[in-house]
Amino acid sequence: MKPEDLNIVALAGGVGGARLADGLAQVLQPQQLTVIVNIGDDFTYIGLRISPDLDTVCYTLAGLSNPVTGWGRSNDTWRVLENLREMGVPGWFQIGDADLATHLIRSFRLQQGDRLSQITRDFCHAWGVQVNVLPMSDDIFHTWVYTDEGDLEFQEYFVHRQSKPKVKGFWFEGVEKARPAEGILEAIDRCDAVVICPSNPWVSIDPIFSIPDLKQAIGGHLVIAISPIIGDQTVKGPAAKMFNELGIQPSALAVAQHYSRTINFLVIDKGDDSLVDDINKLGIQTYPTDILMHDRPDRGRLAQELLDIIKVNR
Amino acid sequence: MKPEDLNIVALAGGVGGARLADGLAQVLQPQQLTVIVNIGDDFTYIGLRISPDLDTVCYTLAGLSNPVTGWGRSNDTWRVLENLREMGVPGWFQIGDADLATHLIRSFRLQQGDRLSQITRDFCHAWGVQVNVLPMSDDIFHTWVYTDEGDLEFQEYFVHRQSKPKVKGFWFEGVEKARPAEGILEAIDRCDAVVICPSNPWVSIDPIFSIPDLKQAIGGHLVIAISPIIGDQTVKGPAAKMFNELGIQPSALAVAQHYSRTINFLVIDKGDDSLVDDINKLGIQTYPTDILMHDRPDRGRLAQELLDIIKVNR
Repeated sequence: MKPEDLNIVALAGGVGGARLADGLAQVLQPQQLTVIVNIGDDFTYIGLRISPDLDTVCYTLAGLSNPVTGWGRSNDTWRVLENLREMGVPGWFQIGDADLATHLIRSFRLQQGDRLSQITRDFCHAWGVQVNVLPMSDDIFHTWVYTDEGDLEFQEYFVHRQSKPKVKGFWFEGVEKARPAEGILEAIDRCDAVVICPSNPWVSIDPIFSIPDLKQAIGGHLVIAISPIIGDQTVKGPAAKMFNELGIQPSALAVAQHYSRTINFLVIDKGDDSLVDDINKLGIQTYPTDILMHDRPDRGRLAQELLDIIKVNR
Repeated sequence: MKPEDLNIVALAGGVGGARLADGLAQVLQPQQLTVIVNIGDDFTYIGLRISPDLDTVCYTLAGLSNPVTGWGRSNDTWRVLENLREMGVPGWFQIGDADLATHLIRSFRLQQGDRLSQITRDFCHAWGVQVNVLPMSDDIFHTWVYTDEGDLEFQEYFVHRQSKPKVKGFWFEGVEKARPAEGILEAIDRCDAVVICPSNPWVSIDPIFSIPDLKQAIGGHLVIAISPIIGDQTVKGPAAKMFNELGIQPSALAVAQHYSRTINFLVIDKGDDSLVDDINKLGIQTYPTDILMHDRPDRGRLAQELLDIIKVNR
């Protein structure tokens, strides 16, 4: 088949997902790629609706993201946050001034009754992002983390408590009623493969898969995941810590087991090739390569390897 | 009487009102001064409640105001506004980054059900303002300007249209139901004089006076106004233009006629002393002096002259 015939749906959380989405955008035409983004981390801060993963994906695709942190905007300033803190507002969530404009417009438009997916489309248009980026749902959906310090909303756990409380489980508030955002089922229907980005399985990918209609639509498609675990570590975020606290040794094998009913392929780090046999026993094919994305060209290189796998296996 | 026994209520709009309030704060102890501020100019901008006059008064009293414009904050930056404009939001209202923190907190707290007067009190506390600053009301109140280009909300007329449409009249939306904010009637009850700051009579002072309970409470008190008109000009804003468009020659006499049923004293510019007889004929005493406040010491000087008048006439 011609490369231009390949349609890909990518499921993404924050920084890791955004980086692979950027890689895929480098090797595909915009109309070939739909990125479905976790909204379980979304929260409200002094009345503003913040969508951390959506923003990270969009800023990254737009070339606006902060290259050091991976989240937020490059060269941002902190005047509003400084003033909020001076006036006694808890300032544990980092919002730059340019970033704040995004949250203001999103919050205002949601108040006016616009859908998150439409707002995201308009943001992408304003930022020159041609790839189709969709929130997983336009409905209310909140990831809760059960911990030894009580039940915490995701950002409370992740940012405010710096992922320190010990994780005991997760709950997705709103999952029963959440429907896929408009355009998602159509994108899945026409895609040649679903790519699960190297995002946190528990709190970035599971929320997306938890939406019944979305999960069902993916069934029967070629699904290829990139392990977010290299050795027993994650590049960023608490995924390895979560595996440990849930009594599971973190590894690419643990990722394969987590996704065993969902994926056909797991792309693992070449340093983890001793796990190939055990992963294959789960009925999952493996592809060991260098999965750490060191820089932008590396994102494109990994994405191209994915396309090569998909072309052979679809 | 001792100076510390004098209690003053000042009615203020934006820049002119803020400057005299600052002068009064220089010559009185904080507990001797209550400033009641117009909220008819308040409006909503991308979901944020903006209270321009309240902010101008509070920023000025806090020493935070922009000394050049009179409104907004000194040394402010414009990152959020720049980004809002880049994303297509109409950016005709100037909101600096530090200023925005004020609007964010106010909007959030109003959403939570807090009263504007309580929020203003907390802002003043955070900014070290000890004077009692109160919005004229905690209720909904909007000044509309009837013009030859249609009926315009005040900020639409004033900022967006730069006061260019020809004024035909005014309407105060919500006036029937608006009650004075908590603490206003008590402050008026115990005051020795009400000072009407050199603010726009039509759109800064009339809205305050339009609240029935507030107007009634002022009846019987010594009321002293400072003319916002010098010669046939205002220092700032469209007051002179409004007088003209309503068919009235702007002058201190016109101000006296406008306030004739309300005030006992009008402080006018010494250059306007030819109007003294005509103003006296309205039953209003006059006090010609230099009413232009050139700098901060000048505000205190004018305020001291007011106190001297009040001490003699109360």
